[in-house]
Amino acid sequence: MNLQPIYNIAEICSKHGISQAVLSPGSRCAPITLAFTRHPKINCRTITDERVAAFIGMGIAQQLKKPTVLVCTSGSAAYNYAPAVAEAFFQRIPLLVITADRPPEWIDQLDGQTIRQPELYGKHIKKSYNLPVDLDHADAQWHAQRLISEAINTAEEFPAGPVHINVPLREPFYPKDNAEIRFDENIKTIAETSSTKDLSSREWETLTEKWKKFNRILIIGGQNNVDTRLTAPLSRIIKEQKIPVVGDIISNLHPVEDLIRHADLFLGQDKNGLHESLQPELMVTFGNSTISKNVKLLLRKYQPQEHWHIQAGGYVADTFKSLTRVIRIEPETFFKKVAEIELPPTFDNQKQENYYHIWQIEERKSSRLLQTFFPQEPFGEFEFIREVINALPDHSNLHLANSMAVRYANFCGLQNPTVEVFANRGTSGIDGSNSTTVGHCLTSERLNTLVTGDLAFFYDRNAFWHNYDMKNLRIVLVNNHAGGIFRIINGPDKLPELEEYFETRQKLTARLTAEEFGFEYLHCNKRSKLTNYLKEFFEDSDRPKILELETSSEENTATLKAFKNTFRDIK
Amino acid sequence: MNLQPIYNIAEICSKHGISQAVLSPGSRCAPITLAFTRHPKINCRTITDERVAAFIGMGIAQQLKKPTVLVCTSGSAAYNYAPAVAEAFFQRIPLLVITADRPPEWIDQLDGQTIRQPELYGKHIKKSYNLPVDLDHADAQWHAQRLISEAINTAEEFPAGPVHINVPLREPFYPKDNAEIRFDENIKTIAETSSTKDLSSREWETLTEKWKKFNRILIIGGQNNVDTRLTAPLSRIIKEQKIPVVGDIISNLHPVEDLIRHADLFLGQDKNGLHESLQPELMVTFGNSTISKNVKLLLRKYQPQEHWHIQAGGYVADTFKSLTRVIRIEPETFFKKVAEIELPPTFDNQKQENYYHIWQIEERKSSRLLQTFFPQEPFGEFEFIREVINALPDHSNLHLANSMAVRYANFCGLQNPTVEVFANRGTSGIDGSNSTTVGHCLTSERLNTLVTGDLAFFYDRNAFWHNYDMKNLRIVLVNNHAGGIFRIINGPDKLPELEEYFETRQKLTARLTAEEFGFEYLHCNKRSKLTNYLKEFFEDSDRPKILELETSSEENTATLKAFKNTFRDIK
Repeated sequence: MNLQPIYNIAEICSKHGISQAVLSPGSRCAPITLAFTRHPKINCRTITDERVAAFIGMGIAQQLKKPTVLVCTSGSAAYNYAPAVAEAFFQRIPLLVITADRPPEWIDQLDGQTIRQPELYGKHIKKSYNLPVDLDHADAQWHAQRLISEAINTAEEFPAGPVHINVPLREPFYPKDNAEIRFDENIKTIAETSSTKDLSSREWETLTEKWKKFNRILIIGGQNNVDTRLTAPLSRIIKEQKIPVVGDIISNLHPVEDLIRHADLFLGQDKNGLHESLQPELMVTFGNSTISKNVKLLLRKYQPQEHWHIQAGGYVADTFKSLTRVIRIEPETFFKKVAEIELPPTFDNQKQENYYHIWQIEERKSSRLLQTFFPQEPFGEFEFIREVINALPDHSNLHLANSMAVRYANFCGLQNPTVEVFANRGTSGIDGSNSTTVGHCLTSERLNTLVTGDLAFFYDRNAFWHNYDMKNLRIVLVNNHAGGIFRIINGPDKLPELEEYFETRQKLTARLTAEEFGFEYLHCNKRSKLTNYLKEFFEDSDRPKILELETSSEENTATLKAFKNTFRDIK
Repeated sequence: MNLQPIYNIAEICSKHGISQAVLSPGSRCAPITLAFTRHPKINCRTITDERVAAFIGMGIAQQLKKPTVLVCTSGSAAYNYAPAVAEAFFQRIPLLVITADRPPEWIDQLDGQTIRQPELYGKHIKKSYNLPVDLDHADAQWHAQRLISEAINTAEEFPAGPVHINVPLREPFYPKDNAEIRFDENIKTIAETSSTKDLSSREWETLTEKWKKFNRILIIGGQNNVDTRLTAPLSRIIKEQKIPVVGDIISNLHPVEDLIRHADLFLGQDKNGLHESLQPELMVTFGNSTISKNVKLLLRKYQPQEHWHIQAGGYVADTFKSLTRVIRIEPETFFKKVAEIELPPTFDNQKQENYYHIWQIEERKSSRLLQTFFPQEPFGEFEFIREVINALPDHSNLHLANSMAVRYANFCGLQNPTVEVFANRGTSGIDGSNSTTVGHCLTSERLNTLVTGDLAFFYDRNAFWHNYDMKNLRIVLVNNHAGGIFRIINGPDKLPELEEYFETRQKLTARLTAEEFGFEYLHCNKRSKLTNYLKEFFEDSDRPKILELETSSEENTATLKAFKNTFRDIK
């Protein structure tokens, strides 16, 4: 088999600016593996568990905002990528999933490690490509190299996502007599220059006129990367137009001054017609998913007259059941323009200002209660997570595992504008948060703190099973020895099946995991120790650290209930 | 939402004879979970890691030869089932994969744990079903209950395999005020009575006439369950017609007397035209995959004039590139008939007998060398695995992980006719062998011994992360701290990338895993200790045991080479 077109895959990736590959061991994939490991500009790592490899690759791509290459051998290896591929698809993270395959004539012939790989990821991939198996003809070579360029461009084009390149390979897989591998530096690639989208001045005028007519405008940001281009226009809109901006912890809008960050907390109760009084006339949304169930419930019930969603391309979700207009530009373009809208001096701003203050009053009550509530209660996960978040070092990353970790963190809210927040809210699975965080550790100088529960932590323990340095990894493990969320939501909490079939009680702590992988291990069960522990925890080290709190689901549920009751009773 | 049709799923399953369900925790799936946990005739277990849950369920189904139910919540949970679903598909194991889903109107709306579940398993599922979401209309109820029966029948029909039932569910998920769940005992199910297939007497005559004309007939069995109905006819064919029967360790033909079980070993070298002398005129195959690469290479090169494959239904692989006829009956039916063929007294049997003896001579040489070779060499994985297999208790199960474990075991061959062998040779992945073995432990009284390498073992460590009793589990871990296979196959062994990117060196031993999960742990590094250790290892216990050998890839490779050289030099 002519392997040069296979080696060229690495060169084409490099020419497109790709610098990271996560490989998993295998023989069928050897030509691809060698192409990447020998390419001078691509950084490779090998991870044995492909489920982990894919989430690590996704973490790297999330960090660098560039496609990461995944390479695995044929067979079920490729299927172990599926959970991360789905997460990347919904979280809009570019991935180049390269799977070695047997040539088509050998499919279904009972040879080892052979499944039906073309289109393997079904509806969770932006596009699937199959490389030609016979690469001797010049047209076939052009075909192969064109497909790689196309695939990379597709992965990067907004909304970004994973693409799959299936590569059928015939033996021999290894260069004869260990021959040198050469890269064709003159290989043709197809670059893609993407455009900026804007509206016509007429469209802007129409929108501006509408904007001026509404008295109760609300802005909500979904999951987003830190986007410094948004901070100034949104801050200005809040300050000058008194428009409340609501953002979950995963919106990364916390650098915006006067952001409403505790909505999930204060919308839990509907006192004195609060909910109705928060009904907007115009709602503007942008970004990906929203964690807060209470925000969704509020706005699905008290719907705006108009709901505009700002998204430059791709399918749009009607998260609040109220969507009336999709505006196909970037949020930055939209909010910069909107920030400049001059309200006429005659304009009666009072209604918008009143509306703004209702949000701000609830926001401040929440902040105050979070500061004063805890010393009265037993020490538990809510307070622990709040302390961790408040102690996060500047310029570090906060990773939130799904289920209770991300919920508590969202209750707490984040203040530090230099911290960036990541969470796998594409599919909201508990399956890959360790690995995603490890991906960041491998490619970022920043400290990466993962806040996680015990089920998510042990589910993805193989994230640490490799030989790469993770000294900038910090894991905060809230171990209630079960899926504590099932005690908190209504329904399962009263069932006889609660412990076995919903919470799924488990006995492990992280002590032996830490010993096994050479992590520093801190076990904290007392409030009085926490400050010192956090100091030690965040200090530089040559190895990763785990800070574990063992805690009781029953107590935590009681604390959360007490918190909500106290909040309700505040005058 | 009318949940009665959902509860009835468990009743329909029970009426079809299904008795086992493996559940994973979640809220969306709560009505299905409750249906199964509360059903008096279904045994449920909860497993948090869905990848593990699916392989455990597959192990149970493999053991009981009945569909096992899997239940998970919506989102990426369902995608973590995919590796086991593919394995079940190719290994022909019936599984009923039930995934809770959001109702269709909520797909792609950025709500948590929502992916595109219909047809999720693509081409690796026998059939995908979607339950209707509105179940109030009587026709919708009939539709739902009919689909469940259809799905079960499809899973069980030969060739068996996994089916997917996607169940969209609206809130509330929990019975109001913890109300009792009732099962409709009169619910209609559709049973399926399967037929026996036979050939017309005319077809039999034609085949018999052909059979009599061939002088060099060879029979090869692929992967199969223990099938006592085959032992007598095959033994008789060997004895009376002098036809060699070749069977890998996974063929489970070891109870057949004079089986050729070391073909992979003695076909490694082609001395004095051996290979050509083994060319058959008629080859008859049955069963699923063959491990032995040497058997495949031999027969792809020295092809028979005719190759008949006996398989009652389903697609047929042309494993040896020589297939000329598919015979659509069960192997039992075929070989019973063939065993009765009376060769005419005038028939010159000498050619067939000569052919038979060539196979038998090589077989005996292999057996002898396996008995005499090892005490000269350093103690390593080949000898260790041979000793383990020879020491297996009667009426126990042997599970073989992929990569080197299954290969060594196949080199060694199995004698004990009361042992049954299992290996995930559907996709031949290293991903689920611990879990599959655990599935057997949960549902069988037999002792279950898994022979595995370190990569497969740690890959699937979550197999032990649950609260169910596995006292009949024994794990033999051959730990060379790497994927040793890459040092043995030609190609990667000479590359500078060998250790990092192919072998993927890893440092763990099973000691802490054993401590964590409360397993008994034996660490054996000396030949002199092995006999005592094996005795202790196979003794009854109230907890699982791990016997670990730490060994060196370099030494093992040298031993294997020395073994082959010695074999080649035998006169």
